[in-house]
Amino acid sequence: MSERNSKAKSGSVNPGSIAQVLDDDIPFKKDSDKDGQLFQTLEDEAIITDTAERPDFLNKIFGFIDENRTTYIETLREAVGIRSISTWPDARNECLRMVQWTASKLEELGFETELRKMGDQDMDGKSVPIPPIILATRGNDQYKKTLLIYGHLDVQPARQSDGWYTEPFCLTEDDGKLYGRGASDDKGPVLGWFHAIEAYIKCSIRIPINIKFVLETMLESGSEGLDDLMMNQKNQFLADVDLVAISDNYWLSRNQPCITYGLRGLCYFFVEVECGTKDLHSGVFGGAVREALPDLIWLLDQLMDVDGNILIPGIMDNVCPVLPEEEALYDGIEFDLEEFKADSGVKALRHPDDKRATLMARWRFPCLTIHGIQGAFGEPGAKTVIPRKVIGKFSIRLVPNQRPERIDKLVRDYLAQKWEERGSPNRFQSYMADDGLKPWCANPFHPSYKAARQATAWAYGRIPDMTREGGTLERLLLLQEITGKNVLLIPMGSCDDAAHTKNEKINMENYITGTKLFSAFIHEVGKLERAEL
Amino acid sequence: MSERNSKAKSGSVNPGSIAQVLDDDIPFKKDSDKDGQLFQTLEDEAIITDTAERPDFLNKIFGFIDENRTTYIETLREAVGIRSISTWPDARNECLRMVQWTASKLEELGFETELRKMGDQDMDGKSVPIPPIILATRGNDQYKKTLLIYGHLDVQPARQSDGWYTEPFCLTEDDGKLYGRGASDDKGPVLGWFHAIEAYIKCSIRIPINIKFVLETMLESGSEGLDDLMMNQKNQFLADVDLVAISDNYWLSRNQPCITYGLRGLCYFFVEVECGTKDLHSGVFGGAVREALPDLIWLLDQLMDVDGNILIPGIMDNVCPVLPEEEALYDGIEFDLEEFKADSGVKALRHPDDKRATLMARWRFPCLTIHGIQGAFGEPGAKTVIPRKVIGKFSIRLVPNQRPERIDKLVRDYLAQKWEERGSPNRFQSYMADDGLKPWCANPFHPSYKAARQATAWAYGRIPDMTREGGTLERLLLLQEITGKNVLLIPMGSCDDAAHTKNEKINMENYITGTKLFSAFIHEVGKLERAEL
Repeated sequence: MSERNSKAKSGSVNPGSIAQVLDDDIPFKKDSDKDGQLFQTLEDEAIITDTAERPDFLNKIFGFIDENRTTYIETLREAVGIRSISTWPDARNECLRMVQWTASKLEELGFETELRKMGDQDMDGKSVPIPPIILATRGNDQYKKTLLIYGHLDVQPARQSDGWYTEPFCLTEDDGKLYGRGASDDKGPVLGWFHAIEAYIKCSIRIPINIKFVLETMLESGSEGLDDLMMNQKNQFLADVDLVAISDNYWLSRNQPCITYGLRGLCYFFVEVECGTKDLHSGVFGGAVREALPDLIWLLDQLMDVDGNILIPGIMDNVCPVLPEEEALYDGIEFDLEEFKADSGVKALRHPDDKRATLMARWRFPCLTIHGIQGAFGEPGAKTVIPRKVIGKFSIRLVPNQRPERIDKLVRDYLAQKWEERGSPNRFQSYMADDGLKPWCANPFHPSYKAARQATAWAYGRIPDMTREGGTLERLLLLQEITGKNVLLIPMGSCDDAAHTKNEKINMENYITGTKLFSAFIHEVGKLERAEL
Repeated sequence: MSERNSKAKSGSVNPGSIAQVLDDDIPFKKDSDKDGQLFQTLEDEAIITDTAERPDFLNKIFGFIDENRTTYIETLREAVGIRSISTWPDARNECLRMVQWTASKLEELGFETELRKMGDQDMDGKSVPIPPIILATRGNDQYKKTLLIYGHLDVQPARQSDGWYTEPFCLTEDDGKLYGRGASDDKGPVLGWFHAIEAYIKCSIRIPINIKFVLETMLESGSEGLDDLMMNQKNQFLADVDLVAISDNYWLSRNQPCITYGLRGLCYFFVEVECGTKDLHSGVFGGAVREALPDLIWLLDQLMDVDGNILIPGIMDNVCPVLPEEEALYDGIEFDLEEFKADSGVKALRHPDDKRATLMARWRFPCLTIHGIQGAFGEPGAKTVIPRKVIGKFSIRLVPNQRPERIDKLVRDYLAQKWEERGSPNRFQSYMADDGLKPWCANPFHPSYKAARQATAWAYGRIPDMTREGGTLERLLLLQEITGKNVLLIPMGSCDDAAHTKNEKINMENYITGTKLFSAFIHEVGKLERAEL
């Protein structure tokens, strides 16, 4: 770890380049590495799902949480009422207000908070302040483990005219759901942690761990400054962290809680073909010149077959094969294919009637998506243009043990070879955006995951599904790399919370029982041996 | 003609459907139709290029024109100063002012003018007046032929900030060029006709023909109302027209005058592929769903080969074969391939080092251009979207004897067959925009073309090139169909006049000598026998 770290630190500060898959930690190695020990099934664990066996003090805490539903909703109403949209320059004051509001909540809970100034940034030609990052600490008992919780306080843009049924910044309760921007992403979950801690305090129950928060208000605007601050804090604020928890994702389904142990990586490619110095009129020039767009279309068509299989040689070489133990994990997951199809609105799935294959296609196999073409005519109507330069855009989602730098080479070599084959006189180039993002996959049998499963069982009376996700969460890799510790995603919200679209909500049940889950997780982390972490 | 006309009139009023190629009139038939009579070469004609042989009264007129250069420039300055941008709702008053200004000029020349009210239209939710169409007549001597001249008084948008070196609406003389919006498209040519007529009057020389004008101020906005008015005027204003001239195109080169006898037609196609009801995130759904864009890219790639040859079976069936007489026409044309390549800025021509093939590819062979994709991600940057519905756009330029309805069927049958082959579960449809536009090709050996050649020789001392163009001019087909008469394109401006872009100009030489050309053409038309027309 330290070697890798120092290597990363000596280079340019780029979250993509320091993020990595910890090959040694991933549970699903190649067949040849299989030693029979790494692999377990959830059945091996002694998770107690009978809530009658729940410790008394947890019952007391859960009771307190139930009694305070109304207060918790009022607190969320206050938070949602602050329009902390980081992508709108005019809303930066609201972001600053959100930081202050949150810091005072933390101080009421006995946290020592630091507001780390991040300076200003230029937005649309206007200098605006970057909201400070909150670093908060409660307890520094060296005999206790330290849990770091990361969350964000800024929200996606929202206007009622976008199609919201209610005013987005006025929390509205309807049919067991709390509608409002940020209710689920990520103000509700952050408050859930606060309320879990408060419950311990109010019930006079000793908190068995030290707790730290990193709360930023710039996630939706590229997390400006966070990477540098975290790297600088490696041997200070982050030095004693034993475990990282993030509640910034969602359940796989509507009703079944889950803990998430993997995310795919990402390589985003640009392919340029240029046939001239200016756009031309197809009436005047059509037929006479060698056009760029047909070349690009041909190239893009070489990327995958009709079934969506990637045609780039070698692309699957480093994909971990699926092992029986892993299959067992998938089979137990609650996931309704028809519901998924209906929610996504798609005409057809690549693997109809196959739950396991569909989940694996989303999480643990790479995929290629062509996103579009820049420079061509993309507006409504009919325009008779010959575009001078067109840029195809596609991305590949990566899984262990694919590495962005190798994928980059495979893709660009393939495109160059195909271009040679095409024999066009036009100009061609291809390149990858940034350094790509590595996939992440934790060991779902790690003690911290077991703790999360037991906590879920205490709160929900059942064992959560162990899920992965297809997207990326850049700061997760950053925190894993810098702390060198286990990270887990412990979501509060449901799959239909509409985090980035209109009518975002959190279910009342998720908000309240999620708070119980967090309080139980604090207890379970307290029981872990530091040596295991 | 009348049969076709009545058929067109009984249907919906659509310029595409009444426009047509007059198969019987086109000079280049299929080999089997070749009878040896239709085909001539320009050498057969007795065009007099020696200006010493120019009739005295033409010398007098040309002298008058030379003496009035300054006045003509001042008149153009006035016209350019009126910002008649029909696409800008706020500029409609300027369009109305342009109509009034022009009508009073015509009246000074002894024309009877009618301003045909066209009503209002809705633009951006605002009701704005449609500028009246000017119908003007000078002379109704039944023993004289009647020449109809069509032109337009509106201009393309222009702002100095678009990159103009001078204020676009302030005519600026520099190095023999007159810069200003509309200088060449189409105010300069319209004024050229006015000045040619004025020269006859001021020199007290009898005008040997009746002259009519149709002047619209809505060409750049879809010629709103023109089609209906023309159809209604078939047996009134247009009833006695013997010949139509339009000066709304440009020379093929910078220095060599030309007369234009052909335009390509156009079929514009939309191909839709839809995979779902909403755009999806490729992280969450990538790999699991059948995406639309790869299907569309595959379909578009089936349209043409690497060399730009169209792969749709039957597409070339109705293209007139090239005959030796036609080849001779091309060989004589002044056209510098390297200059063309440099002006267009392209990397490569489809037929490098082959002038004839390049011109034929532009004018007399069909071509297919893919313009772009709507619904995909076309902006700068990286977005990880799976587009729910994508619409590919391409067009085919048509030549005699291709007909839009047949091309439509061939293209859509081919796409449907390919879609079947693809075997995708997604939704597909393809359709053509409107009814398409038929190609136009007049007989370049028609007496009116000979008259234009002699007029050019009187003005320029040389025989013009006979050219075609690759684009469309919708109202040309309309006027040909309604009048049933020969139409010719007799351009004033040069190939580098930048009609639709910044820094539009007309060369002083083109403006003045073009005026002489028009006056000589009036004389030559006077000499034609009505029976020939």
